[in-house]
Amino acid sequence: MMLCTALVFIMHLGFAAVEAGFTQAKNTVNILFKNTLTPAIGLLTFAFFGFNLMYPAFADGPGWFDFSGFLLSDSSGLSYNSGYTYWTDFLFQGMFAATAATIVSGAVAERIKINAYFIFTVIFVGLIYPVIGSWKWGGGALDAMGFYDFAGSTLVHSVGGWGALAGVIIIGPRIGKYVDGKVVDKEGSSVPLATIGVFLLWLGWFGFNGGSVLSADPMATSVVLVNTSLAACAGALGGCFTGYFMFNRLDFGMVLNGVLAGLVGITAGADVMNITDSLIIGLISGTLVVFSAVFLDKLKLDDCVGAISVHLTCGVFGTLAVGIFGSMAGWSQFLTQLKGVAICGGAAFTSAFIIFFIMKKTFGIRVSAKHEVEGLDSHEHGIRGYTIVYND
Amino acid sequence: MMLCTALVFIMHLGFAAVEAGFTQAKNTVNILFKNTLTPAIGLLTFAFFGFNLMYPAFADGPGWFDFSGFLLSDSSGLSYNSGYTYWTDFLFQGMFAATAATIVSGAVAERIKINAYFIFTVIFVGLIYPVIGSWKWGGGALDAMGFYDFAGSTLVHSVGGWGALAGVIIIGPRIGKYVDGKVVDKEGSSVPLATIGVFLLWLGWFGFNGGSVLSADPMATSVVLVNTSLAACAGALGGCFTGYFMFNRLDFGMVLNGVLAGLVGITAGADVMNITDSLIIGLISGTLVVFSAVFLDKLKLDDCVGAISVHLTCGVFGTLAVGIFGSMAGWSQFLTQLKGVAICGGAAFTSAFIIFFIMKKTFGIRVSAKHEVEGLDSHEHGIRGYTIVYND
Amino acid sequence: MMLCTALVFIMHLGFAAVEAGFTQAKNTVNILFKNTLTPAIGLLTFAFFGFNLMYPAFADGPGWFDFSGFLLSDSSGLSYNSGYTYWTDFLFQGMFAATAATIVSGAVAERIKINAYFIFTVIFVGLIYPVIGSWKWGGGALDAMGFYDFAGSTLVHSVGGWGALAGVIIIGPRIGKYVDGKVVDKEGSSVPLATIGVFLLWLGWFGFNGGSVLSADPMATSVVLVNTSLAACAGALGGCFTGYFMFNRLDFGMVLNGVLAGLVGITAGADVMNITDSLIIGLISGTLVVFSAVFLDKLKLDDCVGAISVHLTCGVFGTLAVGIFGSMAGWSQFLTQLKGVAICGGAAFTSAFIIFFIMKKTFGIRVSAKHEVEGLDSHEHGIRGYTIVYND
Repeated sequence: MMLCTALVFIMHLGFAAVEAGFTQAKNTVNILFKNTLTPAIGLLTFAFFGFNLMYPAFADGPGWFDFSGFLLSDSSGLSYNSGYTYWTDFLFQGMFAATAATIVSGAVAERIKINAYFIFTVIFVGLIYPVIGSWKWGGGALDAMGFYDFAGSTLVHSVGGWGALAGVIIIGPRIGKYVDGKVVDKEGSSVPLATIGVFLLWLGWFGFNGGSVLSADPMATSVVLVNTSLAACAGALGGCFTGYFMFNRLDFGMVLNGVLAGLVGITAGADVMNITDSLIIGLISGTLVVFSAVFLDKLKLDDCVGAISVHLTCGVFGTLAVGIFGSMAGWSQFLTQLKGVAICGGAAFTSAFIIFFIMKKTFGIRVSAKHEVEGLDSHEHGIRGYTIVYND
Repeated sequence: MMLCTALVFIMHLGFAAVEAGFTQAKNTVNILFKNTLTPAIGLLTFAFFGFNLMYPAFADGPGWFDFSGFLLSDSSGLSYNSGYTYWTDFLFQGMFAATAATIVSGAVAERIKINAYFIFTVIFVGLIYPVIGSWKWGGGALDAMGFYDFAGSTLVHSVGGWGALAGVIIIGPRIGKYVDGKVVDKEGSSVPLATIGVFLLWLGWFGFNGGSVLSADPMATSVVLVNTSLAACAGALGGCFTGYFMFNRLDFGMVLNGVLAGLVGITAGADVMNITDSLIIGLISGTLVVFSAVFLDKLKLDDCVGAISVHLTCGVFGTLAVGIFGSMAGWSQFLTQLKGVAICGGAAFTSAFIIFFIMKKTFGIRVSAKHEVEGLDSHEHGIRGYTIVYND
Repeated sequence: MMLCTALVFIMHLGFAAVEAGFTQAKNTVNILFKNTLTPAIGLLTFAFFGFNLMYPAFADGPGWFDFSGFLLSDSSGLSYNSGYTYWTDFLFQGMFAATAATIVSGAVAERIKINAYFIFTVIFVGLIYPVIGSWKWGGGALDAMGFYDFAGSTLVHSVGGWGALAGVIIIGPRIGKYVDGKVVDKEGSSVPLATIGVFLLWLGWFGFNGGSVLSADPMATSVVLVNTSLAACAGALGGCFTGYFMFNRLDFGMVLNGVLAGLVGITAGADVMNITDSLIIGLISGTLVVFSAVFLDKLKLDDCVGAISVHLTCGVFGTLAVGIFGSMAGWSQFLTQLKGVAICGGAAFTSAFIIFFIMKKTFGIRVSAKHEVEGLDSHEHGIRGYTIVYND
C-alpha cells in the first residue's frame, strides 16, 4: 500500500511530463511550475481539511456533507485498519486528490493566469473534490444508493474532466488555434517528454488501481493489474487505428491518449471485469478519445492536451461500463451508474464553472495577449524551458 | 512479485528512451511509436496465445512444442502457486516477452517500414519467443537437459539479439553509414534521454532478476540484486576503459552500453554467482560490448543502438559463464550451456531470418530513400519529436 | 526494504537529471558521464572496503575508527537481522554512499577535471563517508553521545555539502559567472530534465527515509512518509514565496530546490516529528535555501546547481531541528546535535579540502579555459548532449 502511494506520487511527474511535452516550448516552465506546486498544494489542503471532508464518518447516516474537523489526527492509531494505516491512507488519498486539479491544468494551459489556477486548485482539491468523493468513498449518499466506482473513473477523472470543461468554456481558445474554420496545430515541445509522462502514468495506475484494492490480497490485486494493463493496451490500439482512419497518418498523440483513455475507462470497474470485458472497454475508450477530441475542436473548445477527452469522456464511459460489462452488469446498475455520473458531474461542473466565472469577472483568469503570444516563461518566470545552444 | 512486474513494465520506457536518445532526431516519433505499441502488442498476443505456448504443461513429458489453448483461463485459481498468482505470472511474463521485439526494434531503427516491424513483432513475440521459452521455463526439453538460464540471458536477450542480427543483415545499413570504408557517426537526438533509459533499465532489472527468484525469499533475492548491481557497475567501468583505449575519448555511449552489457551478462547466473564472479562477468561483458560494436561495424552491420552487442554478444557470454564461474561451473555444464545457446540461437535466428526475408521479398521491409533521408517523423507521423523554437 | 533500495537507486538518476538540467548544454554529456559512473564507483568501493569501514562492529566499544576487513562476507547469513538481509543492507547503504559524491559533483560541475573528480569520489565515498557514518550508524562515538540523525541530514547530506563547499572554494567560480560585481545567469539546458530529477529524488526519498525505519512496521514507516512529503510540499511553497520576494518573479528553480530543501531538512528527524513540526521544518528549509543561494553568490562561491544550499544549509538546519521540534526537542539534545554537526562537518570539510588542495597543487583540478568556454562535451567526450536538427 505504501509502495502504491509512491507509484501514485509518480503520476504527478507523469502529468507534468505529458502536459509539458504536449504544449509549446515557450510555456514549458509555466506548465512545470504549476504541476510541481499542484501536488504540494493538494497534499497540504488535504492535510488541513480535505481528508476530513472526504472521510467524515457521517455520524447521522450516509448523507451529502459532513466534516470531522481541521488537521489530521492520529487518534485512530494502529487499530485503524488491518491492511494499512491512517497515515498511509491520507498520503494515498492526498496524492489522488491533486490529480483532479492537474487534469484541469492541462486543458487550460498556455493562457491561464497562474494565480487564478492556484486559487481554483485550492478550492477544487480542498473542497469540491473531497465533498464529492465523500458521497461514495466516504460512505455517503451515492454509496448507499449502490453506485460503483472502484478507483475513480467518476470521482477522480470525470470530476477533473468536468472542471476542465468548465475552464475551457470560460477561458476560451488560445489565440490562433481556430482560424477561418480550421484547427491549427500547436506543436508540443517534446514528444519524448510526453511519452515518458504516459508511461509513468501507466506505471502510476498500477498503484492507483492496485492500491484501491486496499489490501494485499494477491488474487484480487493481480486481476486488477491484468485488467488495467490489457485495457491500456487495447486503448493504444484503439487510438492508433481510429487516429489512422480519421487523419490518415500514424498519429502518435492518439496512441498516447489511447493508453490513458483505456486506463481511465477500466478504472471504475477494474475489479469486476474479466479480461475480455477489459479489452473491449479499452478498445472503446481508445476510439472514443479520438472522436471526442475531434468533436471538441468542432465546438472550438481548446483543450491543449486532450484532458477532457481522456478524463471526462472515458471517465463517464468507464463508469457506465460497470452497468454494461462484467459481474455487476444490469439495467438497474446501469441506471444507478448514470445517476451517479449525473450527480457528480453536475456538482463538479457547476462548482468549477462558478469558481472560474467569479474569477473571470473580478481579477481575470487570462494572461495578456502579448504574454500569451510571446510565451509565459520569459514573462512570468524569467527563464526558458530549453536552452540548447552551441557555439558554432 | 507484483512490484517486480511494475519494474519490468518500466523497462519498456527504458528501451523507448534509450532508442529514441541514441537515434537521430528526425526519427524520434517513429521510435517512440514503435516502442509504445510493442508492449501493448506483446501483452495482447501473450494473452491470446503466447502465455499458453510458453507454459503448455507438456502433458507428454518435456518436449519441444505443446499448446494449452487460446486465451487466459483462471481455472488454476488461488492454488496456482504459493508465491504469486496465475495473473501476476501472466503479467510478469507478458512484460518480459515484449522485450525480445524491442531489442530488434533498436537495431533496425531509422529505416524499417512500420508495418513490417509490427508483423514481425506479432510473430516473434507471440510464437517464436514463447516456444523457445517453453523449452526451458515451460519445463521442456532444454530444461530436462540441465540447461540453466536464471532470468533470460539466452531466452530473452540472445533470442532478441539473434532476431536483431537477422534483421540487420537483411535490411542493410542506413544510407550514409559506411562511406569510403569509414564509419560515419549518426548522432543521437538526446544523451539525457538515453541516460534516463539506461537507469530505468537498470531499475527494471531489479524487477527482472529479483522477480525471477519467483518468491519473496529475502536472502536469495538480495544476493541476486547485489550480483546484478555489481555486474552493472563493473560493466560500466569495462565499457569506459575499453572505450577509452579503443577511441581515445571518454565515450559515454560505451559506459551506458557497458551498464546494459553487465546486466545482460549476469542475468543467466545471477543466483549462482558470488560477488567476485559477478564483478568479473560484468567487467568482461562491458569489455566485450565495445569489441562487438567495433566488429559489427567492420562487417557493415549497422545496429543503431548497439542492441546486438549488448543483448546477443553478452547474452551468449553470460549463458556460457554459468559453466565457467559460480557454483554450477564445470565442463559438462559448460557444454550443456553451449548446446542451449546453439539450439535457441539457431531457432531464433533462422525463424527471424525467414520472417524478414519473406517480408522483404513480398511487400518490402525498407522505407523509401527519400523518407529515410528526410526522416520518418514528418512523412509517416506528421509531427516532429522536438519543437523547441523561440521568437527571437 | 529491497524496494526501498530500488527507490534509493533511482535517486542517482534524479541527481543526474537535476544536474544535467540545471547546467549548460555544452557540458551535458560530461555531467551525465560523472553521474552514471558515480554510483558504480560508490557501490564498488563500498563492496571492497567502505561497508566494512562503516559497520566495523567496534570491538573495543564505540569509537572513531575500526575496520572489519576487505570485501563483503556472507558469514552473517540469514540470522543477520529479522527485517532484511546482510546483502540488502549493503546495497541500500552502498546506494546511499554514492550520494555524498554526487552532491559534490553538482557544485563543481562545468569546470572540474574528470580524473580529479573520480579520484575525489573514490576517497570520499570509500573512506571519508563511511568513517564519519560509522560514528553514528556504525554504533561509534557520536551514537554513544546521543547524537540523532534518522536518515542522514548530517551523515549524508551535510557531509556531501561540506565536500561541495570545499570543492567550490578551491576550484573557484566558472569563467564569466561574476562580472563587475554582477551575478551572470548560466542557463540550464533543460528545465523539464531538472523537474524529472526533482520528482525522482522525492520518490527516492520515500525509499531513503522509508527504508531507514529498517523494518516494515507500517505505522512508523507511514508516519515517516507523511512527514517527508509534507516537508517537501512546505519546502516548495517556502522556496516559491521567498524566491518571489527576493527576485520578483515566479522562480521555478527555487521551487525545485525548495522541494529538495524540505526533504533534506526533515531527514534527520522524520520519525520524531508530528505533521505541524514537519510543515514548519519544510517551510524554513525552503526559505533558507533561497537566502543561502544568494549569500553564496555574494561570496562568489559558484555552486552550479545549488547543492551547497540544499544539502549543507538544510542538512545542518534539519539536524539542529531535532533539538528544537518534535519529541526529542530540548536544550541538551540541541547541544548534542550541534556537537555532531560540528564534528562531522569539521571532518568532512577538512578532509575534502585537503584532497582537493593536494590535487590542485599536483596535477590540477580545473580544465583549461578553452575547454571550459567551448564546453567539455566536444573536447572530452566527442559528442553533444542534444542533436536536434532538421533539414529545413
